[in-house]
Amino acid sequence: MSASSYTYLGPEGTFTEAALRTLPEAATRELVPMVSVQAALDAVRAGKAAAALVPIENSVEGGVTATLDELATGEPLMVYREVVLRIAFALLVRPGTKLSDVKTVTGHPVAQPQVRKWLAAHLPEAQWESAASNADGARLVQEGRYDAAFAGEFAAATYGLEPLVTDIHDARNAETRFVLAGRPARPSARTGNDRTSLVVWLRDDHPGALMELLQEFSARGVNLTWIESRPTGEGMGRYCFSIDCEGHITDRRVGETLMGLKRICPKVRFLGSYPRAGTEGGRQGAQPRPGTSDSDYAAAADWLARCLDGRA
Amino acid sequence: MSASSYTYLGPEGTFTEAALRTLPEAATRELVPMVSVQAALDAVRAGKAAAALVPIENSVEGGVTATLDELATGEPLMVYREVVLRIAFALLVRPGTKLSDVKTVTGHPVAQPQVRKWLAAHLPEAQWESAASNADGARLVQEGRYDAAFAGEFAAATYGLEPLVTDIHDARNAETRFVLAGRPARPSARTGNDRTSLVVWLRDDHPGALMELLQEFSARGVNLTWIESRPTGEGMGRYCFSIDCEGHITDRRVGETLMGLKRICPKVRFLGSYPRAGTEGGRQGAQPRPGTSDSDYAAAADWLARCLDGRA
Amino acid sequence: MSASSYTYLGPEGTFTEAALRTLPEAATRELVPMVSVQAALDAVRAGKAAAALVPIENSVEGGVTATLDELATGEPLMVYREVVLRIAFALLVRPGTKLSDVKTVTGHPVAQPQVRKWLAAHLPEAQWESAASNADGARLVQEGRYDAAFAGEFAAATYGLEPLVTDIHDARNAETRFVLAGRPARPSARTGNDRTSLVVWLRDDHPGALMELLQEFSARGVNLTWIESRPTGEGMGRYCFSIDCEGHITDRRVGETLMGLKRICPKVRFLGSYPRAGTEGGRQGAQPRPGTSDSDYAAAADWLARCLDGRA
Amino acid sequence: MSASSYTYLGPEGTFTEAALRTLPEAATRELVPMVSVQAALDAVRAGKAAAALVPIENSVEGGVTATLDELATGEPLMVYREVVLRIAFALLVRPGTKLSDVKTVTGHPVAQPQVRKWLAAHLPEAQWESAASNADGARLVQEGRYDAAFAGEFAAATYGLEPLVTDIHDARNAETRFVLAGRPARPSARTGNDRTSLVVWLRDDHPGALMELLQEFSARGVNLTWIESRPTGEGMGRYCFSIDCEGHITDRRVGETLMGLKRICPKVRFLGSYPRAGTEGGRQGAQPRPGTSDSDYAAAADWLARCLDGRA
Repeated sequence: MSASSYTYLGPEGTFTEAALRTLPEAATRELVPMVSVQAALDAVRAGKAAAALVPIENSVEGGVTATLDELATGEPLMVYREVVLRIAFALLVRPGTKLSDVKTVTGHPVAQPQVRKWLAAHLPEAQWESAASNADGARLVQEGRYDAAFAGEFAAATYGLEPLVTDIHDARNAETRFVLAGRPARPSARTGNDRTSLVVWLRDDHPGALMELLQEFSARGVNLTWIESRPTGEGMGRYCFSIDCEGHITDRRVGETLMGLKRICPKVRFLGSYPRAGTEGGRQGAQPRPGTSDSDYAAAADWLARCLDGRA
Repeated sequence: MSASSYTYLGPEGTFTEAALRTLPEAATRELVPMVSVQAALDAVRAGKAAAALVPIENSVEGGVTATLDELATGEPLMVYREVVLRIAFALLVRPGTKLSDVKTVTGHPVAQPQVRKWLAAHLPEAQWESAASNADGARLVQEGRYDAAFAGEFAAATYGLEPLVTDIHDARNAETRFVLAGRPARPSARTGNDRTSLVVWLRDDHPGALMELLQEFSARGVNLTWIESRPTGEGMGRYCFSIDCEGHITDRRVGETLMGLKRICPKVRFLGSYPRAGTEGGRQGAQPRPGTSDSDYAAAADWLARCLDGRA
Repeated sequence: MSASSYTYLGPEGTFTEAALRTLPEAATRELVPMVSVQAALDAVRAGKAAAALVPIENSVEGGVTATLDELATGEPLMVYREVVLRIAFALLVRPGTKLSDVKTVTGHPVAQPQVRKWLAAHLPEAQWESAASNADGARLVQEGRYDAAFAGEFAAATYGLEPLVTDIHDARNAETRFVLAGRPARPSARTGNDRTSLVVWLRDDHPGALMELLQEFSARGVNLTWIESRPTGEGMGRYCFSIDCEGHITDRRVGETLMGLKRICPKVRFLGSYPRAGTEGGRQGAQPRPGTSDSDYAAAADWLARCLDGRA
Repeated sequence: MSASSYTYLGPEGTFTEAALRTLPEAATRELVPMVSVQAALDAVRAGKAAAALVPIENSVEGGVTATLDELATGEPLMVYREVVLRIAFALLVRPGTKLSDVKTVTGHPVAQPQVRKWLAAHLPEAQWESAASNADGARLVQEGRYDAAFAGEFAAATYGLEPLVTDIHDARNAETRFVLAGRPARPSARTGNDRTSLVVWLRDDHPGALMELLQEFSARGVNLTWIESRPTGEGMGRYCFSIDCEGHITDRRVGETLMGLKRICPKVRFLGSYPRAGTEGGRQGAQPRPGTSDSDYAAAADWLARCLDGRA
């Protein structure tokens, strides 16, 4: 592993690797699979890698708590890029295997609920056993331990298997979002279709504190795209919030919102502004509310300056 | 009248003159009574006077609409000072008159509701007739047209009368607030106990527009001290709002609130920031909400700058 | 005056009388002019009249404070009907007078700002003197004291005058709203296009109290059509609010709002629900927000009942 | 398993069993361990058991997504009781084992982060391998596969082991909350210190929808104790919210809040009202905000009825 390499949640052949390979900047780097989200991120923290790609959210399973907690605590990291990958499984088999030959299947535990209906319809008799990862499942098929594995179609070549059936998924629109995290530096450049991520701790859990926090966003017309509560570890009922919102820290409405949060919350961790990926189920970011564009901010600041000079 | 004079709502001997004389800067100026609020303000607009003192609010009668409307429309003016005067009447008579001699009384129409109970208790038989002003009433007593006039005790000397009874008032805490208005210039210096006045027009009367407007204040912890709706003259149901809030335009929470209003409202008129006068019935301005002081703002701006540099 | 008569703000020939005559129920009643808003309302309170019509709001001058204060304090009254009258003046003269003959004009002081521009354009030399009411002005023209009076065209016949010019108004859409107030009884029947009036006192002037009050409306999708602050008479900075909102007390969103206000405010005075009059400058009441109709309320109450029974 | 039995997330000897045994009503029932949260709840749905105890939230790990998702979807269930259990581990060994003998340790994967610091300090050389559950780990120690297992002290007897060290935990105040879920029926009786659980879906993800949802609570003074977003499975960016609040459905402020949510949200699932357990890190439920008690509600309803009769 070199200081310029990218780590990712391994092993090879997982959806995370597939997501990483969609990034142009990954083409010229060494890509290093790691055994856990924490290991992938710690390599970045230690300066052994330039960045790490880890899953943060799945449209079926929800937030990836290991990633959320690693980003919220410990040595700070920042997000520079996101990748949204549609999740569809292939049934990988050794060359020559027919569907009627499949008596045992494997895959990562989180794959199981996403293929359950397909299994019930097409392989009702097959026995399922979990593997440590989808890629590991493929390896176990290669070794002859199981007849078939659910994994990404791209994993077939790595393990000398064939995709017998492709595009298997119980839920339409199943997607996983991944983030590329690096050591703190200047945020990614504004593109006009950006997302900003942060973690916010509430003051003393006073009643209405969450409303106050959300009011900082709504008062400035900044839309939340995700909010997830996480325990702070200080006992039941103590939470922090992982929040994603539309816009870039250099958008003035976003900057003012961040400053507002900073003033009322005991702790705010800025996790980065970066280009939004994917279509999020076909939906685009909402139009900014009237009065919240940068030019509205500039005009209002000019007006205030004129008021201070008696020239309004 | 010289360009350095102060006009005021006359005639001589009114409460407005008494209020004006409490201002140290009035001591060295020519003070010119005018026949109406409009006349007093127009003299300033025309450059014939430096400033005008006019009543804006009475704790019994409410807002003085002539003043509110003049400040909201026409050539802009700004408020640099306010005076709060406790309103208590004296019963002024010609020297030698006894209470039992008083058969007819006069005074300004707005004085009547403020002395009604006193009249019923002490002069139940006396006939009331209105005068154009309290001072005019005093003049009419001087001329022998009435036996007594309700006016400020300070008016006695001007008209050769004696205060037979003093400190007459039906409502405890009756006060009138006056403002000193001049042509637009730099606001008065911040004192730490200031008031800011403005007029705000709502966008298209859309439902909830008033809530949105107030949210600009509450989101930044700025307390309103007064809000008064005034018709815009464009038909029933069209209003603008005269608003006073705590704080000075150079307080960052106030400046940010003003900019927020400017962004969401089609029109905002800044009427000035100036030292608060009086105790407002014994109440002080509330403590700023945590997280809204200038140092909180500065700390948050520093933090944002560090986020932009990747050093948060 | 009989107990079934209607009083109104007199004298005869005023806009108030004209407004009253638009009410079908006035056709069969004795209509009694009174010298003041208070006198008109006190006759009702004393049982000497069934109801009183008084002006409450003018689109140029704003709220009629005498009416607002009388309805807010003293023996309670309730509003059962409103009338919105377009205000346009006629220039009334003795028969035979030509425009070039008019050297002196009169009218109520509030008429003056509404005809100022017309006067400047058509009678720039004419002298204005105020009369106690528009009708009084007409009487003084009849008596030969002035050459012309601004009044409603309908006042001409009463005073043997002729309308020389009609439809005079500086502001387009000038309207006055009048309310018919009676002793407390069941509110007027719901029509589906109603208004509800109330007076609300705030708790201890605590910061944000006005926001809380307005939140009771906005949380239930009830639109305010008017809010006017009035001093409580307890000193500067102490206000109550006269509020009009869309809807009828029997609309469940309105009833729930009223109960919400009752719970958080030290004092609420319900002034009635009654059919909306006029078009308010062409604007209709907004559509109720989704989820706030009576059927939405009924469905939610049914659902709650099922939850309580374990059948949701 | 009988229809009156209680299922729980097994196997025997887990913290879930320990939590279940704290409930008096469990003493007389057959307690049946199940292999998964889903299996435990499905047994209840199928009428094979009366209720199931499952973990819902851990103060270190956060929400238990299997439980949240099972309660949010599928055949409805309701919560009747909660148990909060302090989580501290014992190091279980075969009788006679000394700390210096321990070379290999096991336990459930979620136990590992909770004992990591203790391990580093006391058994820095020991090898960790995960077991399917803490109880399974104990069984594997009994079988001689590992030298020691982290589990609840209460599991020692079941597996013929001894607690070598007790009260092991890295985070102070580590607690897990469990809920007892049954088929829908009348909610548990109100105790005055209750919690209400629900799942709420937002309308069309429109901007500000979450604020509107929270306003239904805040407008009625109902405090949230927990909010957790969960994907709906319809694609990235589509969430529902699992929410806990203070109070009982029969508290009128809670009932009105529920009805408000029902009106504005496309779907609300009421999961029950039940007595709050534990002290939640020493914090008590906040005092209800003034104006939100049942007697305030009753007084306001009485007042509204009087308004409707003209007797307010």
